Amino acid sequence: MINKKLRFGLPKGSLQDATIEKMAKAGFNISVSSRSYVPYVDDDELEIRLIRAQEISRYVEHGYLDCGITGYDWIQENGSKVHEVGEFLFSKVSRRPARWVLCVPEDSPVKSVKDLQGKRIATEVVNLTKKYLKKNGVQAEVEFSWGATEVKAHELVDAIVEVTETGSSLKANKLRIVDELLSSTPRLIANHASWSDAWKRKKIETMAMLLKGAMEAETKVGLKMNIAEKNLASLLKSLPALRNPTISNLSLKGWVAVETIIDEHVVRELIPQLKAAGAEGIIEYPLNKVVY
Amino acid sequence: MINKKLRFGLPKGSLQDATIEKMAKAGFNISVSSRSYVPYVDDDELEIRLIRAQEISRYVEHGYLDCGITGYDWIQENGSKVHEVGEFLFSKVSRRPARWVLCVPEDSPVKSVKDLQGKRIATEVVNLTKKYLKKNGVQAEVEFSWGATEVKAHELVDAIVEVTETGSSLKANKLRIVDELLSSTPRLIANHASWSDAWKRKKIETMAMLLKGAMEAETKVGLKMNIAEKNLASLLKSLPALRNPTISNLSLKGWVAVETIIDEHVVRELIPQLKAAGAEGIIEYPLNKVVY
Amino acid sequence: MINKKLRFGLPKGSLQDATIEKMAKAGFNISVSSRSYVPYVDDDELEIRLIRAQEISRYVEHGYLDCGITGYDWIQENGSKVHEVGEFLFSKVSRRPARWVLCVPEDSPVKSVKDLQGKRIATEVVNLTKKYLKKNGVQAEVEFSWGATEVKAHELVDAIVEVTETGSSLKANKLRIVDELLSSTPRLIANHASWSDAWKRKKIETMAMLLKGAMEAETKVGLKMNIAEKNLASLLKSLPALRNPTISNLSLKGWVAVETIIDEHVVRELIPQLKAAGAEGIIEYPLNKVVY
Amino acid sequence: MINKKLRFGLPKGSLQDATIEKMAKAGFNISVSSRSYVPYVDDDELEIRLIRAQEISRYVEHGYLDCGITGYDWIQENGSKVHEVGEFLFSKVSRRPARWVLCVPEDSPVKSVKDLQGKRIATEVVNLTKKYLKKNGVQAEVEFSWGATEVKAHELVDAIVEVTETGSSLKANKLRIVDELLSSTPRLIANHASWSDAWKRKKIETMAMLLKGAMEAETKVGLKMNIAEKNLASLLKSLPALRNPTISNLSLKGWVAVETIIDEHVVRELIPQLKAAGAEGIIEYPLNKVVY
Amino acid sequence: MINKKLRFGLPKGSLQDATIEKMAKAGFNISVSSRSYVPYVDDDELEIRLIRAQEISRYVEHGYLDCGITGYDWIQENGSKVHEVGEFLFSKVSRRPARWVLCVPEDSPVKSVKDLQGKRIATEVVNLTKKYLKKNGVQAEVEFSWGATEVKAHELVDAIVEVTETGSSLKANKLRIVDELLSSTPRLIANHASWSDAWKRKKIETMAMLLKGAMEAETKVGLKMNIAEKNLASLLKSLPALRNPTISNLSLKGWVAVETIIDEHVVRELIPQLKAAGAEGIIEYPLNKVVY
Amino acid sequence: MINKKLRFGLPKGSLQDATIEKMAKAGFNISVSSRSYVPYVDDDELEIRLIRAQEISRYVEHGYLDCGITGYDWIQENGSKVHEVGEFLFSKVSRRPARWVLCVPEDSPVKSVKDLQGKRIATEVVNLTKKYLKKNGVQAEVEFSWGATEVKAHELVDAIVEVTETGSSLKANKLRIVDELLSSTPRLIANHASWSDAWKRKKIETMAMLLKGAMEAETKVGLKMNIAEKNLASLLKSLPALRNPTISNLSLKGWVAVETIIDEHVVRELIPQLKAAGAEGIIEYPLNKVVY
Repeated sequence: MINKKLRFGLPKGSLQDATIEKMAKAGFNISVSSRSYVPYVDDDELEIRLIRAQEISRYVEHGYLDCGITGYDWIQENGSKVHEVGEFLFSKVSRRPARWVLCVPEDSPVKSVKDLQGKRIATEVVNLTKKYLKKNGVQAEVEFSWGATEVKAHELVDAIVEVTETGSSLKANKLRIVDELLSSTPRLIANHASWSDAWKRKKIETMAMLLKGAMEAETKVGLKMNIAEKNLASLLKSLPALRNPTISNLSLKGWVAVETIIDEHVVRELIPQLKAAGAEGIIEYPLNKVVY
Repeated sequence: MINKKLRFGLPKGSLQDATIEKMAKAGFNISVSSRSYVPYVDDDELEIRLIRAQEISRYVEHGYLDCGITGYDWIQENGSKVHEVGEFLFSKVSRRPARWVLCVPEDSPVKSVKDLQGKRIATEVVNLTKKYLKKNGVQAEVEFSWGATEVKAHELVDAIVEVTETGSSLKANKLRIVDELLSSTPRLIANHASWSDAWKRKKIETMAMLLKGAMEAETKVGLKMNIAEKNLASLLKSLPALRNPTISNLSLKGWVAVETIIDEHVVRELIPQLKAAGAEGIIEYPLNKVVY
Repeated sequence: MINKKLRFGLPKGSLQDATIEKMAKAGFNISVSSRSYVPYVDDDELEIRLIRAQEISRYVEHGYLDCGITGYDWIQENGSKVHEVGEFLFSKVSRRPARWVLCVPEDSPVKSVKDLQGKRIATEVVNLTKKYLKKNGVQAEVEFSWGATEVKAHELVDAIVEVTETGSSLKANKLRIVDELLSSTPRLIANHASWSDAWKRKKIETMAMLLKGAMEAETKVGLKMNIAEKNLASLLKSLPALRNPTISNLSLKGWVAVETIIDEHVVRELIPQLKAAGAEGIIEYPLNKVVY
Repeated sequence: MINKKLRFGLPKGSLQDATIEKMAKAGFNISVSSRSYVPYVDDDELEIRLIRAQEISRYVEHGYLDCGITGYDWIQENGSKVHEVGEFLFSKVSRRPARWVLCVPEDSPVKSVKDLQGKRIATEVVNLTKKYLKKNGVQAEVEFSWGATEVKAHELVDAIVEVTETGSSLKANKLRIVDELLSSTPRLIANHASWSDAWKRKKIETMAMLLKGAMEAETKVGLKMNIAEKNLASLLKSLPALRNPTISNLSLKGWVAVETIIDEHVVRELIPQLKAAGAEGIIEYPLNKVVY
Repeated sequence: MINKKLRFGLPKGSLQDATIEKMAKAGFNISVSSRSYVPYVDDDELEIRLIRAQEISRYVEHGYLDCGITGYDWIQENGSKVHEVGEFLFSKVSRRPARWVLCVPEDSPVKSVKDLQGKRIATEVVNLTKKYLKKNGVQAEVEFSWGATEVKAHELVDAIVEVTETGSSLKANKLRIVDELLSSTPRLIANHASWSDAWKRKKIETMAMLLKGAMEAETKVGLKMNIAEKNLASLLKSLPALRNPTISNLSLKGWVAVETIIDEHVVRELIPQLKAAGAEGIIEYPLNKVVY
Repeated sequence: MINKKLRFGLPKGSLQDATIEKMAKAGFNISVSSRSYVPYVDDDELEIRLIRAQEISRYVEHGYLDCGITGYDWIQENGSKVHEVGEFLFSKVSRRPARWVLCVPEDSPVKSVKDLQGKRIATEVVNLTKKYLKKNGVQAEVEFSWGATEVKAHELVDAIVEVTETGSSLKANKLRIVDELLSSTPRLIANHASWSDAWKRKKIETMAMLLKGAMEAETKVGLKMNIAEKNLASLLKSLPALRNPTISNLSLKGWVAVETIIDEHVVRELIPQLKAAGAEGIIEYPLNKVVY
């Protein structure tokens, strides 16, 4: 088992810092040196490579990487044949998946994909777009966009296929969504051969569990409060969000401590209700990992 | 209720990142795009506007904003007629309010405001300063300072009215405080009409509770320790800071777990005392929200 | 006791932000102004000075500072006669001490320090290097390096003595480690006279306890889970890492909550075992301080 | 004459670097230290002060500064009684003066200033705007804008008064110009008493000449070419832009060298005409100063 | 002619500032606003668009742009059918064209393109690479590289096709050049229809002349010196680099002034020779434009 | 002669960009890659190394470098035995050499070096300071300062030895100059053996001439004007600064063109005099090189 290594690809670039932070929460501390393209990680069984998200699935498929994290969109765009180990949660801010959408200027006459017959479309996901047009029986020119795609819709092409989470950048660019091609979330993928290797599979599965626990923890919080025992039943009944709380006895007679793990975005609606139900000393605390 | 919106003003500029972080802790995730002046927030009932702290009270008064967060100083400077919903805690670092003070160079002959008769004063808060001079029966020229006010006291004017928390910037500029005009803390304010609207008032009150909970949490921590039951009474008696702890039974006979929420800056004095009183395994953990 | 002050030196420069963050976790909030070289701290009994790590031990020895935090390496390099109050933990990422090592280019003929007879060595720690050569009976020229030492090994000198944690920067520079001169961790040191002063010593000891608690907390986490009472014994037996957990009764009959403080880097191996042993609802949460 | 000093105010902030560069071209080298608010200048008869452009005319009027460079707009806004020594050229890029204009959203019903009766206007130039409204017999509320004025026109107020050169920022913000209040260029102004002092006036006049020479040089270039003597007359006749060229004899018989100083933006139309007229070896070179 | 516009594409990104500077030297002042994607230019007959160099030829071909500046490499990669108006000079630093080269790690067994049969190659110029392989009768997989191509050669693929000027980045990455595919310089290209339009063609030709003059001027300097008439002939004879100098008579009898325009990189060899030949008061001055 | 190389050391760090710019003006274009420590230079006979100014003389002495540019101060501090080829001009802004001065706080009782007997001094130039003390018969402790030396004078030591040009940073730090130890200008130095090699010496001398020409040009400008022939004699007589002007005949009868190279800082006094003497169309233009 000595010298066994798992080669793990992480997305380089805009997502890099967030990913390294998530890896740290999962228990794997990575430090990137500007002078070396091989980052340090405090696990002798791991070798980290930072590779553009667009390319990770390709290098997992080819076997250069045993596994990696990338988006469902790029696995599809590349048509990569890989084993999908797990899906991770959406971004914390929007709580929505990334969506690749067909867009036109707000005042464009284009109302549906059918109106794009014979037109030109710019996008970073050329293959996804061609497949989508074919499915819709539309013939149009699809050209690869090297960047600033949103600006192109107004002058250079008739439509674009672009990625968005909240839609606010599209709105700021005066673009209208015509259709959605694909909804994408981050995935942990593995090379098929690596997945067949018992040691590697075990390692990948453990990392999947820890990463899932770390990502889960980003959108969850711990909630703790005290309540009189007599009010407990009605509290739990009226608030299904508090499923499976840990209830512990307090030394103060007739009072219990209620503790639960809960979606962070629910808390803002829950706290007023908890107070109304008689809860006291409510505190919310952050989590590093949640493993059910 | 559908389409009901609360328009909420947050301070733009140097306080912006800290405010957005506080809003996130309160449960409202905001993302600011450089391409749009309307930030995204993950609550359909909210519309966020980022406006200079100096101007928020004005736009709340005019009704353009339903409510907003700004300093007591700028409400006074603008003379805005608004409903004050709540006051928030002081800054974490200094644990002191912002103070607008009358300053002169260390070696200035000016000893009191009376010595400023016929002189010139530079400040960003022209109205506050004029009112202060009037109250003191002093006639002096007050001019609006576009910035770098501290430097002006040495050459351009006879005195300045400037804001300070710790006084260290004044000391570094060799300035002496002559008098204090106003002590200011952040406030949540509402337009009077909005406050009369039941739906808006409910929404504002909920947000006030959550924001207060989040800000409270910044200066508080959770403290947890184990102690032999026989030492518990004397521990609690000698340490009034530990008011209302949650005491839970441990499976280990004769021992209890004591948990409490406490001002962070007290901990540094408390921990040595706790150890002396027989506490073991003391841990301090961070909080996101504290709602009593 | 009034006006008693402890003058405390913290390392300026690359470690500055991390140190100020640690001080804040220990309960001492510091704010550095670009206009003043005396930082503000929210404790009237403290005076903070930011000084290069290389010089702190010198100014503690001379009595200008009562105490300070610096590395063991620079205490040795300066030959400072100071009282060592405590040693702190290694860096979070590598969990290894800083090591000063003798390095040569990968393809250098130098295999041991003996091969450096009559050669030239560049380093920032001239005294340590000279002492090391003397101990090994080697005569070589040692010159002070003003920076970029790693590059010099290839062209300007025959060997270098440089500091490393993970060795990855050396590897990226194609350097080979020949020997290790010194392993160094951060230390809290005090001036001998200050240490004899009862008030100062008490203050230093309290700060040492709080700082140690804060640094300890950086490499530890809280772990909490529920388990059926019948599985508890076997869980605890099979997992010695869970030493001294706090076990509290749940209101749900037959179930207990197990809570413990544990090294963060152990968690990644522990969680799969906990799940296998029947634990449910495992959460990991961050800590600010851990004081045993 | 010994120890005589002229106190000269230069605009701080966004125009600072450009102004210091212009001063250098005029022959006065200034270096600004972050640690001192008094910049170094290599002329013992000068004392430089960097002050916000908005405030310079005020401090010249009060006599704190002998003279300074600021915009005509801020002299008017402040109503400063100062001696205007000279006017400088427009910005190089747009070759247009700064214009303060009344703007509304593109789709606003406001067509003229008359439509603003009873409305609210935000601006940095409150006095100019009030005077303008009065002249037009319009009563409207004018409020000081602390920044980001262009965004306010869409939501917070009915109109803004903002400064523009090329209009492209207004266009990008979907604003329409309703009227122009003031056209402004940079001015060198002097305190009336300083202007009456013979030594100071002489010094100011010399600096005015050198600064004018340096600014002039930014929009001019040197142009040099060879031409057969027989073609010279028709060249000069057809190209009035080439007024007063320096014509020197070449050793090559029948050929002369023509050299002139010319507006840079004319060159792009002139060069094709020069080639057509028989000029050869045309070169354009940069200038530091032009004094007629 | 009123309202006639020429739509001109300039490369966005890393070359943007240099290009805008060159345009300014050519006489066209452009200012880019972060709030607008249409830059301001001080010529009413021009409309500037900033577009990635990789895409310019495509949008010129489609007619969206009348003309633009891009590299020969991207015209070829895109296979764009455009009119090539002119070629510009190489970069000032290296005085060499950009070269797309086939590279492998220094210690790779690959010695010629033939050795790549059945291998994988990463590159940004997929079409150029495929054409090159076909010409050489080699079948290999070519994949689009999203960046950091140089690093890939060591681990992810068998070879890369990358661009280089001086080769020093390849050397730093321990890569060996196997073959050169294409040598590329900047070109001014025009849409065929625009080129047929008399007004547009005239405008394009004028701009080509001015841009060429400006770029030429970057690698040339003016050189001026005095010499005794008797030494002139031998000076000119022995120094062919001084072709076509302008020789003017000085008022000092027997002396002439010699002035010429010359490649800047020649000056460093020329000046010692000039001094040896009796030249005095040699000065070199910068140029904005050179039009022969 | 093929493969002959001159290894040339340039100062790395704060002076790096200015030095590379000067080298470019001298005719040697250098480009520094972040990925390589060997910069590219467009001269096959040169090898550039960027080394800290403090260390260059040491590596020239050891023969690793053939020559290099560094300050006279560091040659002295290192006691390096090197051949001094040439001295360059002072900085453009201050037109003064760098001076190493002994400083104390403004209110220190120390009036002369004699008062430092038994005290402590911090400095970056330990050897220079020790030699200076010895020469003055003073015994004091000299300690190496790792930076921020100016701040130390107020608290950590009794005096400092620090470098200054204009003295304004010392003044801002409230320091008083007690004595000057050394005045330093940039020097081109060569290794003695390299200087004995004919090829290397020739190459060094040529570079010295070109660099000197380039640096000279930074503080000089070209001045050109027209004047009526009858006024010429009195102009030249009254203005000795105009030594050795080039006077050429104009085609306009009775007028001549006067051209000269002159110290830039003289121009500001000269131009008013020239105008008074009847000169017209005065222009000043920048220079790249001046070789007498």
